[in-house]
Order: sequence, then C-alpha cells, then structure tokens
Amino acid sequence: MDYSSFREKLKTICAINVVPFQEESKAIDWDGLEQNIQFLLQNNLKVIVPNGNTGEFYALTLDEAKQVTKKVVEIVSGRALVVAGIGYSVETAIELGKDAQAAGADCVMIHQPVHPYITEDGAVEYFQTIIEALDIPSIIYFKNQNLSDNVLKRLAPLQKLIGVKYAINDVQRVAKVIREVPKEHNITWICGTAEKWAPFYFHAGAVGFTSGMVNVHPQKSLAMLEALQQETKEEIWKLWEEVVPFENLRAKYHDGNNVVVIKEAMEQLGYNAGVTRQPVSSLKEDDRKAVSKVLQSWGLVNQKV
Amino acid sequence: MDYSSFREKLKTICAINVVPFQEESKAIDWDGLEQNIQFLLQNNLKVIVPNGNTGEFYALTLDEAKQVTKKVVEIVSGRALVVAGIGYSVETAIELGKDAQAAGADCVMIHQPVHPYITEDGAVEYFQTIIEALDIPSIIYFKNQNLSDNVLKRLAPLQKLIGVKYAINDVQRVAKVIREVPKEHNITWICGTAEKWAPFYFHAGAVGFTSGMVNVHPQKSLAMLEALQQETKEEIWKLWEEVVPFENLRAKYHDGNNVVVIKEAMEQLGYNAGVTRQPVSSLKEDDRKAVSKVLQSWGLVNQKV
Repeated sequence: MDYSSFREKLKTICAINVVPFQEESKAIDWDGLEQNIQFLLQNNLKVIVPNGNTGEFYALTLDEAKQVTKKVVEIVSGRALVVAGIGYSVETAIELGKDAQAAGADCVMIHQPVHPYITEDGAVEYFQTIIEALDIPSIIYFKNQNLSDNVLKRLAPLQKLIGVKYAINDVQRVAKVIREVPKEHNITWICGTAEKWAPFYFHAGAVGFTSGMVNVHPQKSLAMLEALQQETKEEIWKLWEEVVPFENLRAKYHDGNNVVVIKEAMEQLGYNAGVTRQPVSSLKEDDRKAVSKVLQSWGLVNQKV
Repeated sequence: MDYSSFREKLKTICAINVVPFQEESKAIDWDGLEQNIQFLLQNNLKVIVPNGNTGEFYALTLDEAKQVTKKVVEIVSGRALVVAGIGYSVETAIELGKDAQAAGADCVMIHQPVHPYITEDGAVEYFQTIIEALDIPSIIYFKNQNLSDNVLKRLAPLQKLIGVKYAINDVQRVAKVIREVPKEHNITWICGTAEKWAPFYFHAGAVGFTSGMVNVHPQKSLAMLEALQQETKEEIWKLWEEVVPFENLRAKYHDGNNVVVIKEAMEQLGYNAGVTRQPVSSLKEDDRKAVSKVLQSWGLVNQKV
C-alpha cells in the first residue's frame, strides 16, 4: 500500500487532545471529550492524536484507552487524520492497535516502551513486531535518550513506518538522525516536544510538530506552523517568545505540570477540561495565577483592573 | 491489623523471580517458572516477589501478570512471603492488587508510576489510593529521582504501608530519608538496587535488599545478607567485590542487560530461564563470555582448559 498521502497529511500539527475527568469520581467526561475534539476540528486541526501523553494515556485503563480512540474516530468522522496512541507490552500494544484499526483510526503512534530495561536489538524487535502486526501504518514516539538512534535507522526501511515523533531535545542528535536516515524511506519527522522546540527541529528537517497547546490557543500554534512552513524567521522567533512562558510553566516540577497547566488554562477559558488523574494533582494557587498571566498576555482573557 | 510480623519477615532478601519465556513463541514456560520458584525456596529465600522488574512485569499482559502471581502463590504455599508487583494506572493497579489478594499474596509492591508527568501531591494520592483500596499491606517501589522524598514522608503514617523499596542510588538521599521518617511509622527500608548497593543502604539503616542474583547464586546473596546483618565489614566488602562484576554486567547498555544476564547465567548453569521478551534481546557473544567468566570466578562452572 502507498502511504504517501498520509505522509503528506502529517506535515502539520499533531493535536494531542485532552481527556476531561470529572472532579470527584475522576470518571471520563465523554461530553467534555466531544467538545474538546469539536473545538480542535473547528480550529482546523488536521491530525488528532487520542491516547497521547496530553490525553493522560497512562492514567487510563486499557478499556478506557480503547473507548477514547473509538469515540474520537466517531467524532472526527473523516474530517481529520486520527493517530491512536498505543503501548505497553508487545502483546498489549498489538491488542490496542488492532482495536484502534477496527474502530477506524488511520494510524497508530507507538509510545516509548515503559520497560525499565531496553536493548537496541530488543527495541528494534519491539517496534517491528508491533508495526508488522497491524494493517494501518505506524509512527514511533521516540523519547528515551538512553536509546540509540540506530533503532530508528534500522526500522526506517519498514514500509508501514511512516513517521517518527522525536522527543529528545538534543539538537545535535535531531539534525544527525534526520540527515542520516535515507530520504528514500520517506520518514516524516515530527517534533515531539511542541512549539518550544519546533523551530529547532524544523531547521533540521522536521515537517510537523505535536502540540498540547492547541487545546488552549490553536491560532497561536497554527501561526507557528505557518511561520515555520514559510520560513519567516522574525515571525517564528516572535511567536516562540510568546509560547515559551506557557511551555515553561508546563515543564515545571520535572514536567509534572505538563497536562494540568493545559487543563487549567482550558477551564479558565470556559472549556470543559475537568481535573487530571493521579499521579498529577491540581495546580497550586501561584501556578494558576501564572496561567492567567499567560492567557492575558495572549489577549484571551481580560487583564484584571 | 498488626503487620509487625510482616515487617520482621522483610528483614531479609526479596527474591525477584524470573519468568522464563519459550524461545520462538515467547510464551510463558510455566514449568520453568515452577522450577525457578522451587529453586528459590530450596535455597531458603523467605520473600518471593512475582511481577518485579526481573520478572519482566512490563513485558507481560495484565492477564499474564495475574496468572504469574497466582501460580507463584500456589507453588510457594506458605513457605515464604509473597509480595506481588502491581502498577500502571490507579484503577489497573487496584485491579491487579485485588486479584493478587484474592490469589493469596501476602503483600503488594507498587511499582513506580509509568506516567511521564508526576507531581508530588499527585504521587501521594496515587500511592495512597492504591494502598487504601487493598486489604493486604503495601511496599512502595521508589525509583524516580525526580520525585521528592516528601512523597514517602507523607505516606509513611499509613498503617498499610509497611515498607519502601528505595532504588535511587544517591547515598545522601538514602541516609536522609531513612533518618527523617519517624521510627514510629515502622517503615521497613529495603535496598532496591541489590547486592552492589546493599552495603551502602544497610549502613544508613536499610534492613533488607532485593535481588535478581538469587536466581543464579543464592548462596552468595545470602552470605552478603548475613555479613550485613552481622556487620562483619571485611566479609561485606569481600563479597561486594565478588558480586560487583556480575552487577556491572547487568548494568551495561543503560541497564538493558539487567534481566538477560540473569537468564543467560541461569541457562549456563542448566536452569530453565528461557529467553527475554522485547524490548530486551539475547546477549551478544562477548557478553555471554563475560557471564561465563563471572560464573567461573564464583566456582559455579569449570574453567575451560
């Protein structure tokens, strides 16, 4: 099968949706999820990724993860590409992948293995076994800095591997791996660390980036995408300066704030984001205020008098 | 309920069993698992931990993890304490914990959350929710160096938290947290990084250690335990020098070799350990030879002429 149209469609933002949880029960708020997906579609996001880290994949049971993918496919209904996150043991990942495939997802994103022990050959076998077990194509989420980029170089010839979401913020490695994987393998390189890092990754050859910020301020993310695609440098760095305070707030507490800052910002804007599940707690007052400040700087809420 | 007898029983080695997989299918070799557990029992190991990292917990499906615990409880049949590893999302961990409890496990070991984003309050809630949902007591496996030891200090008063398997090899932190958690909470401190680190942890107040090496050379591990308990310094450091080459071999490739070195050593000794599952591959020839060399140095196999 020819996946070139998919590869073309990935030259954009991968929008990682949230999964709203109810305050006390922490059950999934399915209406909230629908509103979130509709919001992304209305704002012209063309790739939606259920079960990404912003979607708190690891806080879901396997059944919930399957349901989230199914629900997102239904809501999207062909208006965007759906890339479903899958992971855990090989067998579990294949089970999640086949389920996503049956639900109508276009593609899967294979999370970094959670296993504490990984060898290079073993990682190649891990990803290859999963990729080959599925009919729909795969994107690898690569974020373990202890793992060699040889893993990607060895997997790149696989026809069903269409992209890599690279998330190791070592610009030397980013540039090197993108240049060293032969172009003929048609790997779409996606910056896996969002707007803060996208300018650096694009400069080295990435053509897309993932974003959690799209759930809050999609116009800003899309402006960043356009600037990156047009290579309008002044605009890129101006936008970068505007997004970095938000992304730095998400990076607080060793990334502990990553999703809860998104949800807090959404709530402040009146969207239904709900709470996060453990092991992430609600924001403390000073961080809430810092979120408000960023939203004010973006002109999304009024400055308090 | 009074868990003081459990706490007393944890002043020993937590033996983390392997799960043998068949060569081609990578299915669980249940006979091999039984032989492994019998071997540990025959060698006087008093705490068996199914679903630890040496048991490749993350390479098992949830169903397999439940079956492994059930099988181990059956084989042990009261001859040792069974501490079942559980983890993943809160809901999944509770499901695994209740299953282990129903199967007759004595205690659970809650793995470090696999979630990429963790906050201090969130981690406290994560562990507390799981601990309180179960009737049997819990041990926390603490290995994320980005997480503050405050998490442990805040959880220590919970009656059903009886021990901590600490696995952050920062001796300043180890000594500090053991001294700062009030003795009245009766937390049993277990060195989570085996024979190589046990002398340092014991010096600071740990009273037990976990071991994968017990699957290969239990006498050596038990000798280490005795030396640590008797505080016979010369013996401690002599044994330490003997085990470090093996543990360093396991630490190769950012710990990628951790389990496969155990399995290779077991196979060389004629025990049924089988292969590892992805993302861990078989050992390369030079590492196999290095394993033989350690086994020779221990007098377990004959030196080649």
